Amino acid sequence: MTLLITVFAPIVAIAAGGGHAQLFLTLFVMYVAAKLAAELFERLKQPAVAGEILAGIVIGPSVLQLVAPTELTNALSEIGVVFLLFLVGLETKPDDLFRVGARASLVAVLGVIVPFIAGFVLLWLWGKPHIESIFVGAAMVATSVGITARVLGQMGLLNLEVSRIILGAAVIDDVLGLIILAVVSSMAKGGVDYWQILAIAGLAIGFTIFVALVGARAVNRIRPRVARLRVGNSWLVFGLSLCLGLVLLANYIGVAAIIGAFLAGMSLSEATEDTDMPHQAEAVTEFLLPFFLISIGMQLRLDVFLSKEVILLSLLVTVLAVLTKLFGCGLAALPLGRRKAAQIGMGMVPRGEVGIVVAQLGLSLGAVSDAIYGVVLVMAVATTLIAPPFLVRLFRGEQREDSADIIPLSPIA
Amino acid sequence: MTLLITVFAPIVAIAAGGGHAQLFLTLFVMYVAAKLAAELFERLKQPAVAGEILAGIVIGPSVLQLVAPTELTNALSEIGVVFLLFLVGLETKPDDLFRVGARASLVAVLGVIVPFIAGFVLLWLWGKPHIESIFVGAAMVATSVGITARVLGQMGLLNLEVSRIILGAAVIDDVLGLIILAVVSSMAKGGVDYWQILAIAGLAIGFTIFVALVGARAVNRIRPRVARLRVGNSWLVFGLSLCLGLVLLANYIGVAAIIGAFLAGMSLSEATEDTDMPHQAEAVTEFLLPFFLISIGMQLRLDVFLSKEVILLSLLVTVLAVLTKLFGCGLAALPLGRRKAAQIGMGMVPRGEVGIVVAQLGLSLGAVSDAIYGVVLVMAVATTLIAPPFLVRLFRGEQREDSADIIPLSPIA
Repeated sequence: MTLLITVFAPIVAIAAGGGHAQLFLTLFVMYVAAKLAAELFERLKQPAVAGEILAGIVIGPSVLQLVAPTELTNALSEIGVVFLLFLVGLETKPDDLFRVGARASLVAVLGVIVPFIAGFVLLWLWGKPHIESIFVGAAMVATSVGITARVLGQMGLLNLEVSRIILGAAVIDDVLGLIILAVVSSMAKGGVDYWQILAIAGLAIGFTIFVALVGARAVNRIRPRVARLRVGNSWLVFGLSLCLGLVLLANYIGVAAIIGAFLAGMSLSEATEDTDMPHQAEAVTEFLLPFFLISIGMQLRLDVFLSKEVILLSLLVTVLAVLTKLFGCGLAALPLGRRKAAQIGMGMVPRGEVGIVVAQLGLSLGAVSDAIYGVVLVMAVATTLIAPPFLVRLFRGEQREDSADIIPLSPIA
Repeated sequence: MTLLITVFAPIVAIAAGGGHAQLFLTLFVMYVAAKLAAELFERLKQPAVAGEILAGIVIGPSVLQLVAPTELTNALSEIGVVFLLFLVGLETKPDDLFRVGARASLVAVLGVIVPFIAGFVLLWLWGKPHIESIFVGAAMVATSVGITARVLGQMGLLNLEVSRIILGAAVIDDVLGLIILAVVSSMAKGGVDYWQILAIAGLAIGFTIFVALVGARAVNRIRPRVARLRVGNSWLVFGLSLCLGLVLLANYIGVAAIIGAFLAGMSLSEATEDTDMPHQAEAVTEFLLPFFLISIGMQLRLDVFLSKEVILLSLLVTVLAVLTKLFGCGLAALPLGRRKAAQIGMGMVPRGEVGIVVAQLGLSLGAVSDAIYGVVLVMAVATTLIAPPFLVRLFRGEQREDSADIIPLSPIA
């Protein structure tokens, strides 16, 4: 044994110098855990997404402590969800989204107002300070569209009208969430500058509408030029550059990175439908997405459950988070029928990384206590875990469309 | 202007909290710079690889200072080159490699001995300490097979006999380099433990031969099981898991990560040739590889050129590094004819990241001075830049094989 250690120690030292042993250990554990869980859940006829998030809880700091969130895992997670939304955008034609614009706006608005008020009132009745209650309300507003998009994408249902409403509502939801966050943050800092809020709102709305309106037309215009590029895989290269560029721009403007990625994908959706590019983007996503799903699970800290109050509040906030989106968004979609209303409502339930970011901001501004931060984490992860199985059930029996086909087989509605 | 700043500052702050603005700025700058340079070089009929490395010098700390190497860029770079070698492995059948084994071994051995002695003697004659001279010799041994593989892959020439000899020689070269490095490191620490060196050598050789011999057979045996997996893109998922696993194992044993990736790809080459997996792996590589190439360029520090001695020595070491591989490996390949000898010799010239790692180890052990570290950096980057244009010329006119075909069109030699 001692011999083995003396032999191995310098080898590992050399390896660490040369080859990032820690890096590949992290990658291996995260990727393989995610995919084993996905396989297990598929066999149990449960959504793979939920398995991958659960795997994150298991290997993360709460249970096995194999991996902890680091700058690197956060970066991979962020790149993973960006690629997912880019891919979803590639399967979404701007016109299809605009067609559902009015309904999506209503879904988004009710999906913002109802959870916000409910979250605020609950925490306020619980005796929490004003500002903390407001932050919890704001965290309950955020929709993590990635989870729903992944479930629908794996079922081949991204082209349904309800899927488009969910996507459109999530984009609008993100812009509204940004405005609420700006208001809440300036309140926490003591004083709201309305001009500044207006500037933030104007920029965010302007950016989103501008890219959505002009993006596809601009890309279609330079189509022959992209095809003439000498660099290999020219559409992939152009697409990734556009994606990273719009993600960066979205980031500076304050909209979520994934909105930039989604808009980039949508701008390219018409120009690339006859190319191999969507399949290539899918392959990259297939590699990177597990790091996002695992990372969500890794965020959960089970030690918050040490206090009875926190357990009870976590439970209440989570239930409220599910019900307010389900019925808030569902109400807005009720004219489409109860089935579609339920599909849309459930599609907006996952809070995932967006809810966590809001809570982190509150924590960093001193407006949110550690206990309430834990409550929001539980809510964010739990809603993200709860939604996929229901989504699978609610969408079972819908006509699957093979998005690989150049001409959609069955355009719906 | 002041208004603009007051408006933007909090937005950026929110963005930074939520969306890793710095992360996406880095990704955008690196990816777009690499691909713009690649496009420019393709138009100038120069190898894209050289353009992407040069782009790294330009945007890196030496010139524009837009990006500097960080833990994240190093990680992306490492993942990028791992994917490249995985992809190269996917296009390499074990039998094809074994068939050229004897020749590849000879190429590797001469490609190790000649540069090592030349490097050592030059530095020693220059008046440098023994141990420093030995480290420079060791850094001149390392072959960065990624660069040559990328050039040949883009030309569709990976299936040539000479390409296989280069690949095989690079694998053996890496194992020999590891042994030399182990000897040199223990010398720098004051005293060589021969048993330990023997253990390192045994493990490295054993691992490589075992995986090369058994890997493909094991994968072929579980082929039906992988096909039956419920998880989406099962071959990609299995392939990536195997790749990360062997990379990790290689790392612990002390062999370079890329050798593990290459062996994983080779183990999968027969089982996956009828699947979409090689194309999917290519797409992932297409996204990640630019970070590797840019990172090599970013390593270069032009400030070492402040001293005349360093400039002269850099020039001499670089020339010697090119000539010793060209003629050393070329000599071993001479029975195949002068053209093939030149192709193989030039294919072994790039030192890239492997040479840099050796120099870093020497620096960290206090055996290599800053000036000599700078010299090795110049040699590593310069050899990597010099080889591609010559490779393109030397391989021009060879029968291109479309590796996308299931049955190779024109098996050569």
